[in-house]
Amino acid sequence: MPTPSDLANRQIRLASRPTGLPTRDNWRFTTEAVTEPAEGGVLVKTLYLSLDPAMRGWMNDVKSYIPPVGIGEVMRAGGIGQVIASKNPAFAVGDTVSATLGVQEYALIPQEQHKRSALHKIDLSVGSATQWLNVLGMPGMTGYFGLMDVGQPQPGQTVVVSGAAGAVGQTVGQLAKIKGCRAVGIAGGKAKCDWVVNELGFDACIDYKSGNVREGLKTHCPDGVDVYFDNVGGEILDHVLARITRKARIIICGAISQYNNTAPVQGPKNYLSLLVNRARMEGIVVFDYADRYHLAVAEMAGYLKDGRMKSKEDVVEGLDTFPETLLKLFNGENFGKLVLQVAA
Amino acid sequence: MPTPSDLANRQIRLASRPTGLPTRDNWRFTTEAVTEPAEGGVLVKTLYLSLDPAMRGWMNDVKSYIPPVGIGEVMRAGGIGQVIASKNPAFAVGDTVSATLGVQEYALIPQEQHKRSALHKIDLSVGSATQWLNVLGMPGMTGYFGLMDVGQPQPGQTVVVSGAAGAVGQTVGQLAKIKGCRAVGIAGGKAKCDWVVNELGFDACIDYKSGNVREGLKTHCPDGVDVYFDNVGGEILDHVLARITRKARIIICGAISQYNNTAPVQGPKNYLSLLVNRARMEGIVVFDYADRYHLAVAEMAGYLKDGRMKSKEDVVEGLDTFPETLLKLFNGENFGKLVLQVAA
Repeated sequence: MPTPSDLANRQIRLASRPTGLPTRDNWRFTTEAVTEPAEGGVLVKTLYLSLDPAMRGWMNDVKSYIPPVGIGEVMRAGGIGQVIASKNPAFAVGDTVSATLGVQEYALIPQEQHKRSALHKIDLSVGSATQWLNVLGMPGMTGYFGLMDVGQPQPGQTVVVSGAAGAVGQTVGQLAKIKGCRAVGIAGGKAKCDWVVNELGFDACIDYKSGNVREGLKTHCPDGVDVYFDNVGGEILDHVLARITRKARIIICGAISQYNNTAPVQGPKNYLSLLVNRARMEGIVVFDYADRYHLAVAEMAGYLKDGRMKSKEDVVEGLDTFPETLLKLFNGENFGKLVLQVAA
Repeated sequence: MPTPSDLANRQIRLASRPTGLPTRDNWRFTTEAVTEPAEGGVLVKTLYLSLDPAMRGWMNDVKSYIPPVGIGEVMRAGGIGQVIASKNPAFAVGDTVSATLGVQEYALIPQEQHKRSALHKIDLSVGSATQWLNVLGMPGMTGYFGLMDVGQPQPGQTVVVSGAAGAVGQTVGQLAKIKGCRAVGIAGGKAKCDWVVNELGFDACIDYKSGNVREGLKTHCPDGVDVYFDNVGGEILDHVLARITRKARIIICGAISQYNNTAPVQGPKNYLSLLVNRARMEGIVVFDYADRYHLAVAEMAGYLKDGRMKSKEDVVEGLDTFPETLLKLFNGENFGKLVLQVAA
């Protein structure tokens, strides 16, 4: 293994804030020398990076649940890597870790940033590296706590999830089935819908690209929608609002249809259905559940092991492809959790 | 007292469904003979009718928490009246009652409709007839259960209520103060705002007609908005969404700004603030709390008695004025709970 000083660290930094979809011009490619960790720190070689819709929000200069990425900073990204140098007794060279690594080949994480970076060891006997970015990672935790804590699904109820073939969506639908619910997905394209039904075991999946979502909900949710896990916002949210049951719960996890808007966000014009149905719409941010991740991971690992849950990742190779690979999220091209493989 | 057969019952019926604001053409005035109640029934002389924003919704032919008023039917309205004939041992001639009387001078309520009409005796020693339509009636119950059950205000938190000088708004703000919260109203015009602050004891009131709601919220809710009780929807809801705190609760009670829309309802374009703030937006329909009304009435009657709560009604005389009086709700002319006095 080379010493850190032999290594060059290729990085992708935010050059400017995009209007609409980010383009290559919004990024700047830099190369820096890798330095040894100071006392308490670790140096991590990036293996896989998680590409998520939320990244688009971090590129805007607006107050949110997390500060925006600054101009000139390495783009924020969670990932899986391998410790290649350590001055911390809790981490040994060779350990596989999960952390906010950033879009770069090497991440030097000083001790004082371990907590903020969510640096922790992961056990590859429980799940693969990419599964640790998917069902066992942030998307899985988001789906788990959003569905269970906010959605509170009861056996026999109907759970609808948009972005059903995506990272969060696949967790939500499969978990809903495990908990005894009817699971109906909404996804783009026949291939995704077929996969969601045939491979993941959803009861139905509505293709918003070819079908009529309103009619699809009528057909597949004859008793209405008790829980809606919303990843997309926009018109689909309005169609579901028109079909909710009394005391329904809507989990607002994201609104990918609106993230690259240059116009104002489209508010749900059917929101008064909340009144008529005494229903609830509630936002979720996964970080709030950090102290219970280990419980959810243990439960989900059990489902992976006994085959009741599948974890599909869409892995694209090469740090340099980052600008274009990220866009797959927004044009709906990704099929499963989108992962960027940076090193083998 | 004349016998029923001597009496003519003037009524106002829904003639056609309005587009936008209802006009006199949407109503039909009829006069019918009054008939004796059958076994178990009562005949009630209408004294006061409650005019409420929700009435506008009942005029539309859409599925809601209650069926629409049919074309040709007497317009639905709750009210206070006096029993003038009774074939039911539970009600004596002279009793003052609250019930869904309809916009008419006399209501014949057969026994099988007592429950659906929410017919019950009221005690005028606890509050006046008009207070029984306000703080002790549906608006008071709506404010009470919306704020306490859905809003769950904690002492020291900031509660904002729109339509602050209206029936529900005055209850919500005064109750928030009693529960140890900071109460900030939003109302139209200086007179209403002054009254809300000086007479009802709100901490502040933002005049949406002359002021800037966004700036007003900044000034008067320096720590953000923990609970928002929304009676109006539209832009004001968006302004508040931009100022909510983490884990805030928004009670959707109505959206008077949208009821006479001929365009689609304006959805809250800042709804993603629910996500960022892990906040909740939830609808309330007062009827769900019917089995606890007596508890809330007892509590509120205590506040009326010890002077901690005031109950202001805007009483307009004359059944015939109904079409125009109703419009006061929608142009913001009413000052306090709007009541139509039908008889003395």
